[in-house]
Amino acid sequence: MVKLSDTGEFGLIELLTKGLVYDPATVIRGVGDDTAVLRVDGGKWLLFTTDMLVEGVHFTSAYSSWRQVGAKALAVNISDIAAMGGCPAHALVSVGIPRHLAVEEVVELYEGLKEAAGTYRVNLVGGDTVVHPERLVINVALLGEVEAGKAVLRSGARPGDWIFVTGTLGASAAGLYLYQHPGTACPQAAAKACRRAHTVLVPRVDEGRVLAECGVTAMDDISDGLAAELHQICKASGTGCLVQADAVPVAPEVKEVASRAGKDPLEWALFGGEDFELVFTVSPGKFPEVNRAAVKAGFCIYKVGEITAAGAGLLLALPDGGTAPLPDGGYDHFFRL
Amino acid sequence: MVKLSDTGEFGLIELLTKGLVYDPATVIRGVGDDTAVLRVDGGKWLLFTTDMLVEGVHFTSAYSSWRQVGAKALAVNISDIAAMGGCPAHALVSVGIPRHLAVEEVVELYEGLKEAAGTYRVNLVGGDTVVHPERLVINVALLGEVEAGKAVLRSGARPGDWIFVTGTLGASAAGLYLYQHPGTACPQAAAKACRRAHTVLVPRVDEGRVLAECGVTAMDDISDGLAAELHQICKASGTGCLVQADAVPVAPEVKEVASRAGKDPLEWALFGGEDFELVFTVSPGKFPEVNRAAVKAGFCIYKVGEITAAGAGLLLALPDGGTAPLPDGGYDHFFRL
Repeated sequence: MVKLSDTGEFGLIELLTKGLVYDPATVIRGVGDDTAVLRVDGGKWLLFTTDMLVEGVHFTSAYSSWRQVGAKALAVNISDIAAMGGCPAHALVSVGIPRHLAVEEVVELYEGLKEAAGTYRVNLVGGDTVVHPERLVINVALLGEVEAGKAVLRSGARPGDWIFVTGTLGASAAGLYLYQHPGTACPQAAAKACRRAHTVLVPRVDEGRVLAECGVTAMDDISDGLAAELHQICKASGTGCLVQADAVPVAPEVKEVASRAGKDPLEWALFGGEDFELVFTVSPGKFPEVNRAAVKAGFCIYKVGEITAAGAGLLLALPDGGTAPLPDGGYDHFFRL
Repeated sequence: MVKLSDTGEFGLIELLTKGLVYDPATVIRGVGDDTAVLRVDGGKWLLFTTDMLVEGVHFTSAYSSWRQVGAKALAVNISDIAAMGGCPAHALVSVGIPRHLAVEEVVELYEGLKEAAGTYRVNLVGGDTVVHPERLVINVALLGEVEAGKAVLRSGARPGDWIFVTGTLGASAAGLYLYQHPGTACPQAAAKACRRAHTVLVPRVDEGRVLAECGVTAMDDISDGLAAELHQICKASGTGCLVQADAVPVAPEVKEVASRAGKDPLEWALFGGEDFELVFTVSPGKFPEVNRAAVKAGFCIYKVGEITAAGAGLLLALPDGGTAPLPDGGYDHFFRL
């Protein structure tokens, strides 16, 4: 084990930034000056987002490897860019590092960052490394691009639009449940799939690009649960919505874990966060075009409901024909049907 | 006192972002979507920087008000943009907040951020608010702009260039000393000036713009002390330097505090960080132009030495005619002449 006091700050930075490769067309100066220097394309809009992850709050090294934490810290930001229909481009990484961490662990964290950066073609152009007394804190700031006028905001949903998601939901919440209740008797394959969904995040960049190109009206990534994201979209758009409970797609392995845990899989799908699929709205007339484009790009879309007028509120249509309010709840505020 | 548990995350965000004003020409979407959306000018280069401040490491509410901490968190980043010769433009703010903090304290922190943003015309376009178990952590990511080709890198210094700083040094270190040794007998006015230099940071944006326009060859903001910044410039430029100890400008109040504290004021000026003046290099032939421009803009420049060939190393010329190596030391690694 190499200690941080052995390398010092500059030795550590040298280790962490080793092997960084930049896109020469856009990165004039990366790590190593007061700021990064980037070339911009006047025909594009910039997308600018940030997320802070705190050890013990957003992740724990008991469930995730440092490599997974690093990858996730970048991926949650990439997911935000995807939700605007953009491409991620340049990132800065700030890390507060506790002294008890080994240099090898910090290097592993950065391996995860670099791996995700490579996969999504993000240039890691700088950052800050500081001491933190107790725990690891990692903050990523990410710049992306989208063609001028093509960013998909939350505010564009209109009554009559259909609501879709790009994949099944609830696996990340099921995975978290299994980490927190390790004694749960559950088939290996289902447990593995759910645990992986919780620790490995795949942002839907290609999906977001395709959907933006088709002119979807509003879009969001599902970081806080489908219900919470719909509340954001409806608030920004000045609309209500009606979600069909039995249309919300839940993967078989989530149902399997839920049944062993005595939980309702729909709760995980609606209120468990961190699935990172996209939820979007589109006018019914555009559905055939969106569907064709999705099939061509190799992903599925699932219709889960419709946008309604503001006065109608946010509702959930139950299988028995009744309706219930759709609560604005994340994972912590479970709602019983 | 309002508790965080009373407002919740979204109530807090609403409080913190109240009254934010954006530049309509460049900010298409600020706070309130997955990402900020910004218009870019194709003729500009982007400058992109970040800094993380950890309570108890970089600041303490015992010395600084929350308003000062907020302002400083933005200003340290603005200083980095200034050191490239650019203008700050758009910022994201991530804050990890301990539960014991009152909502009023977080609001005060943001008042400081907003005040600094107003002064330097920065749009606060988004961020992240999360819970932190022990202490406040604040991360700012800042975008700036500079005319294409005009960014002043660290790597441009050439042997024969003269080295200048834009103001007197050491006051921040003297202020920190006074905070840490409150019993020091010292004239009120001097103590107040030094304490203020430690808690209130004035980034040299106008100075940086003027100097970049004049074609200075390398520039850095003095965050880690003059000696440390010269090490950065010389390393990046592949040069050495010779600093004249008696030419390093030290304010009278710093000398006063140092004499009462039994310290050498030159140590504070060379190795005490956080003065946030600019250090720059320029060819001697350009000096008259730079000097005229500085006088016109209303600031002083002080010649502290010259850039030399790499083989010569980094040296300090002492008043007695001898020379000593210039250590690469920040505030923690004091060097005795």
